[in-house]
Formats: sequence, C-alpha cells, structure tokens
Amino acid sequence: MKNIIVAQSGGPTAAINATLAGVLRRCGEIGAENVYGALYGVEGLLADKVVSLNDVYKDEEKLTTLVHTPSASLGSCRKKLGSADNSPEEYKKIAEIFTKYSIDTFFYIGGNDSMDTVDKLSAYFSGKGVNVIGIPKTIDNDLAMTDHTPGFGTASKYVCTSIAEVFADTSVYDTSSVVIVEIMGRDAGWLTASSGLCHTLGYSAPHLIYIPEIPFTDESFIEDVKKALTESKAVIIAASEGIRRPDGSYAKSVASSAADGFAHAALGGVGKFLEHLVSTKLGCKVRSIELSTLQRASAHIASKTDLAEAQTIGATAADMAKDGKTGVMAAVKRISSSPYSVEVVPVPVSEVANKVKHFPTEWLQNHKLSPEAVAYFLPLIEGEVTPPTKNGLPVHLQFRG
Amino acid sequence: MKNIIVAQSGGPTAAINATLAGVLRRCGEIGAENVYGALYGVEGLLADKVVSLNDVYKDEEKLTTLVHTPSASLGSCRKKLGSADNSPEEYKKIAEIFTKYSIDTFFYIGGNDSMDTVDKLSAYFSGKGVNVIGIPKTIDNDLAMTDHTPGFGTASKYVCTSIAEVFADTSVYDTSSVVIVEIMGRDAGWLTASSGLCHTLGYSAPHLIYIPEIPFTDESFIEDVKKALTESKAVIIAASEGIRRPDGSYAKSVASSAADGFAHAALGGVGKFLEHLVSTKLGCKVRSIELSTLQRASAHIASKTDLAEAQTIGATAADMAKDGKTGVMAAVKRISSSPYSVEVVPVPVSEVANKVKHFPTEWLQNHKLSPEAVAYFLPLIEGEVTPPTKNGLPVHLQFRG
Repeated sequence: MKNIIVAQSGGPTAAINATLAGVLRRCGEIGAENVYGALYGVEGLLADKVVSLNDVYKDEEKLTTLVHTPSASLGSCRKKLGSADNSPEEYKKIAEIFTKYSIDTFFYIGGNDSMDTVDKLSAYFSGKGVNVIGIPKTIDNDLAMTDHTPGFGTASKYVCTSIAEVFADTSVYDTSSVVIVEIMGRDAGWLTASSGLCHTLGYSAPHLIYIPEIPFTDESFIEDVKKALTESKAVIIAASEGIRRPDGSYAKSVASSAADGFAHAALGGVGKFLEHLVSTKLGCKVRSIELSTLQRASAHIASKTDLAEAQTIGATAADMAKDGKTGVMAAVKRISSSPYSVEVVPVPVSEVANKVKHFPTEWLQNHKLSPEAVAYFLPLIEGEVTPPTKNGLPVHLQFRG
Repeated sequence: MKNIIVAQSGGPTAAINATLAGVLRRCGEIGAENVYGALYGVEGLLADKVVSLNDVYKDEEKLTTLVHTPSASLGSCRKKLGSADNSPEEYKKIAEIFTKYSIDTFFYIGGNDSMDTVDKLSAYFSGKGVNVIGIPKTIDNDLAMTDHTPGFGTASKYVCTSIAEVFADTSVYDTSSVVIVEIMGRDAGWLTASSGLCHTLGYSAPHLIYIPEIPFTDESFIEDVKKALTESKAVIIAASEGIRRPDGSYAKSVASSAADGFAHAALGGVGKFLEHLVSTKLGCKVRSIELSTLQRASAHIASKTDLAEAQTIGATAADMAKDGKTGVMAAVKRISSSPYSVEVVPVPVSEVANKVKHFPTEWLQNHKLSPEAVAYFLPLIEGEVTPPTKNGLPVHLQFRG
C-alpha cells in the first residue's frame, strides 16, 4: 500500500471526516508514500480533481480539526457509476487516473449507493493491482451488514437534544400547543425512532413518533394528537420526512416534482403538512420545525462514541487494504451493548450495495421504544466532545475550493 | 429582604434560567427567608400559582442544572398588565398575593413588554413595602439602556455555528446552490447581523445579510444573489424574519392572520418566500432553513460569557433590591471591548419599557460587519460550556408542571 486515494460520497454527515481522518492517520502509520484525495467523489475522480493530502496525514493538529469538521471536506457527489458494460469509458478513465498516480488502493466512504460503486470498481480492478474498499456512513443508519453507521450517533444526539430543548421552549406557556419536528429519513425510521431515547431521562417528549415503516393515516394521527393533548399541554411530535400512507404514497400534501440523481423522491414538507392537519382539524396552536441539514452537520454536538468509532472504522479499513482485501466494506459488529463493545469486520460489499435496512417495527410500540431498542441506541449517542474553537466559533478544515 | 418572589416573562431564551439561578443564589447569600417563584409570569402570579424555591436556592447542584436549562423553568406568559386605573382589580389581586406570602421584593425577568409591567407595579407599590426590580432578557438584543441582553450571546453563538455547519454541508457538491437561513428578529436585526462574525474566522458565509432596519426589495435581492453566485458556488443568506419593504410591509408572500397577545404580527415564512424568489427568478437549487425556536433554546451550545453574565446580572439585581432600589432594571454597561469588561448598573425601568433599540445600520455595509460591530459582538459569544448530561442527553430542571 504505497499510493492511496480516498473519496467521499452521498449525503453529508458530521462523522464522515472523522472516518477520513482515521484512514489518513493509519495510512501514515503504515507508511504510505502518497495519500491523495479525489474531490467530489467519483465525479471528481473522473475529472482528475485530485489533491495531495501529504501535508495532512501526519499532522495530528490538522487531523484533529478534520475529525471535528462536519460534512465532506473532500466534497461529495450523488453520481452512481454505470455498469462496466454500459459505461466502459468511465472505467477506462478511472484506470487512467489510477495509473497516473500509481494508485494501489482506493477508499470510498459512503452509503448504499456508494457501496454499489465500490462493488463495481472492485470487480473491475480485481487482479489489476488496485484494492477497492468501502467505508460506511449515513445518518439514516439503513446500511445492511453493519450494526450501525458512522454519523448516525451524532445525528441522533442532535435530534434528541433538540427535542429536549424544543420541549423546554414549547411548554413554557400555560396553553395547549403542538410542535412537529420533521426529521430526515426517506425510507428508514432509525433516526426519528431514536428520539424516543429522551424518555429514558424522564422527558415526556417526544409524545408521538411516526416513521416510514409504520403506515400513517390522517385519521389515526388526529386521534393520537387529541389523546396526547389530554395528557400534556405541550405535545412534541417526531415525524420522519418519509412517512407513508397504507398505499405507500408519502404522507404529505403536495408531491414534489424534483428528484435527485438517484431518482429518490426529493422530500420535505411533512412537517408543514402535519401542521396544517392539526391546525384545521384541532384548531390548536401548532408549529413545525424542519431540522433540515442542521441534523447531519451538527459537529458541535457530536457523539464522542460516534467520532471515535468513525476513526477506528477508517483505520481498520486501511488495515484491510494492507492485508490485500478488496470488494469489502468495513462493518461494525456489536459484541455487547452493556458494557458497549464492538469489532470492525470486513463484509462483502455486494451484500451492502443498494439495500436498505429497515427499523424493526416491534422496537416501537405505542410511540415508545422497547428495552431492546434503548439498549441498541443508547451507547451510540454517549459522550461529549470538545471541538476546536476560536473566538467562540467552530474551526473547520476544507480541502475543496 | 426577607420574602422574595421571582417570575419570568416573554419569549424564552437559553439564559433566562441562568439569571434566575443568579437571583436565587444571591438571595440565599443575603439570607432571604423564603424564596418563591410565580409560575407563568404575572398570569400565574394573578392566579396564585406560586411555588416555593426554598429547596433550590441553596442547592448548588440544582442551581448549576438550572443555569444550563433552556427556556423559563418557571414558565412564561405574554400578558401585559393594564394600567392601575383601567385594571384596578389586577393590582388589588397582586397586592393580596404579596400580602399572603409577606413579599417584600418582586423580581421580573423579561423583555421590553415585561419592563412595562415592572414600571407599573413599582409605581403602584411605591411606599407600600414592596420593591419591584426588572431584569433583562431577550435573544433580540433590542432593549434600551443596556449594552446588550442576556440570552443574545448564546443565540448568536448558535446562529453563527449553524451557519458555519450549514455552509460546510451546502458547499459539499460541485454545483451552485443557495441556502436561506431565517433568523428571529421581528423589529431588530441584531441577531441576524451578528452572523457576520463568521467572516472573522475566514468563513465566506453568510454571503448576504438582510435585517429589518435596511429596506428590502425583491429586485436588489435577486441582483445580490446573482452576484454572490459568481463568487461562491454555495451561497448562504442570513435573513431576519422581520425584513421589510420600503413601505414598511413585511417582505413575505402571505400576510399571517395570527397575532400574539401583544399584537405583534406573528411572523414566519420569510425563508420560504425568499426560497420561492430564488427558485422562480434564478432557477438554481435552493433550500430554506428556519432556525425557529431552536435558536432561543440552544443551551447545549451556550456562550460561556452569556451564562456567566446572566448569573451576575441576576445576583446584582438582588443586591439592588437589598439596597432598597425599586423601579429599576439591572443593565449592562460596557467598560471595554478588549479586554472585555462590563459593570451591572441600575437604570430607570421607565426608560426601557416599550422601547426598541435598533441595530445601527452603519455597522453593516455591503453585507459585512464594520470593525466596531465585530468588537461589539465578538466578546458576547466567547467561551464554551459543559452542560450537565446523562447517557449523552441534556439534564434540565423544571418547576412548572
């Protein structure tokens, strides 16, 4: 492992740079000669947007800043590589870039679409002297074959903390009110469901939790809210952006015409839709809050566990490459929840690509997490970090323009 | 000063409980016999919703938790007391409550509407053995007679940090995009303008800043965004909820019919309106993020300076009451910005009530803060806190039901 290149892909998280730092640091320890970054994922790789990271990977101060920088410092993309049969020119171009920089190892940090790219590239470069390793990330926690994903714990900690703070705010007046907190998650309800952790500290919020895996109807929603308002003056509702009606259609008023490069429906508006429902059907004071991109960039309140693991996963992926592995993803295997203990193990990337791991609905009963769910989620948000600051503001490290 | 009662009023902040803790701790030190809290401001006072805080005011662990609890732990209200001539029954009722608990001192923590209540009550109880002291709070920073207000520094730190994180997120793709961050501030642009502090650390965001004090036109906004997009792929816009057109009307598409108890227009929707403008006039990728109540409840990223000052102001207000003062507000007087140094001084509450201190527009030129503005704002957001947590979640203290 002499010359390595690393890239980041998919939606940002607050831990994807910690993973990058873990890869870079271990490459330095292993004795890599040149460490490169491709800007903007495979899109930038194809365009030879390659930067040297040689001044970073042995500089512990820069690595520490990188650990605490949210989003992808190398930039990202939504591009999904075509098949080698259909897009041979893309594979040829990547081979040229690898040759140009004498690359023997390519790390790609991303979600299930990115693992499809890792799968295709590792097959293409098999026997051609380049190992291709996938490293997981997503706040959605919906990757197969791994106990959980880096970035999820931090997003969950942000969501839980925000719900506790919003509840403190909303319950301040002696009147009934409803607040809907719209949380990311197109297909999987892990992040929204995890807000139920607030109950473990005695918070009554969130009073209601809605996720894509449990069919949504307007009628039962209104009944739920009515009932909750008899038990609490301030009712906080955690709702996934991807909640669906029994027929599978998204539960929001207006279908969006936009779609991203992966042909997922571009969502948004569930909060406003539910706000409208409460306002028109119950007539009580109601507000909706969309956590938006804040929830995936919340480096300032990262989970210590998440950032530490993200670095370990990155480092272990480098070890896997050194050991000659290719076509694998560095996955988390949980040994124990209490005391919390995990191992990082290689799994075939083909078993991760394009799959979605859904939240087990038996873990959420009557808007409360089961003991199994609490045991699963709680270790992931534990521990506080102290990110570098200057003049009271966060310090970030970027490699892109 | 034997029996004191304290209440909180107006919109929540993340420092109003730190002020309460400062009042309570100093009352303990002075040797108060009984310390009461009125729940839900004067509304709860009128309804005899009074709780004893005797188990809190000498318990340093509870006081510390209180310091880091956002919003008003005693609850709040939006009630503005009528005049003694028009609403004599309200004054009589309050006098009865004061007599019932042998109250000699009433502290009211709030904004300019609450200072009107302090003004009226201190006049009414003048010579009747009850001192009435006002203590400032508001994230809007728009109170007269005080250098700044507790709660503002924390809100500003949250806004600046969120803008830095949103910029990291938004700039991740190699495409042009615009994000509008909608920030609270009906009448005063202090909070939105302070986001310009990000520039002091080299962040290019926010690229554009719009505040109520500077008239807004759709045409110049579109020109500003067009120009900004030639300089940065990702353009972040900080916009006050209260930005207005030259004729004084709010710059948003749909006028809201709702109004709160003080007959302020209930705002919201500026972000969505600007998003619509960018989308229809420029056709580029655009998103709006409303920081909503998150920005006034962000105890987890409080300014150390803000929380320390909030406690000092509360304590000094108690000293003022002990010294026999009434009808005053504990105000902040700045001695120096560098090194930062302030004094807490009494000011006549009548000169604070119902007034709004506007942001000086000469401090914001071409969407950048002047050196004077930076020197003013920067000390207020400095320093990081470590709020109490358990299992990775924040621990709060509430006195209301």
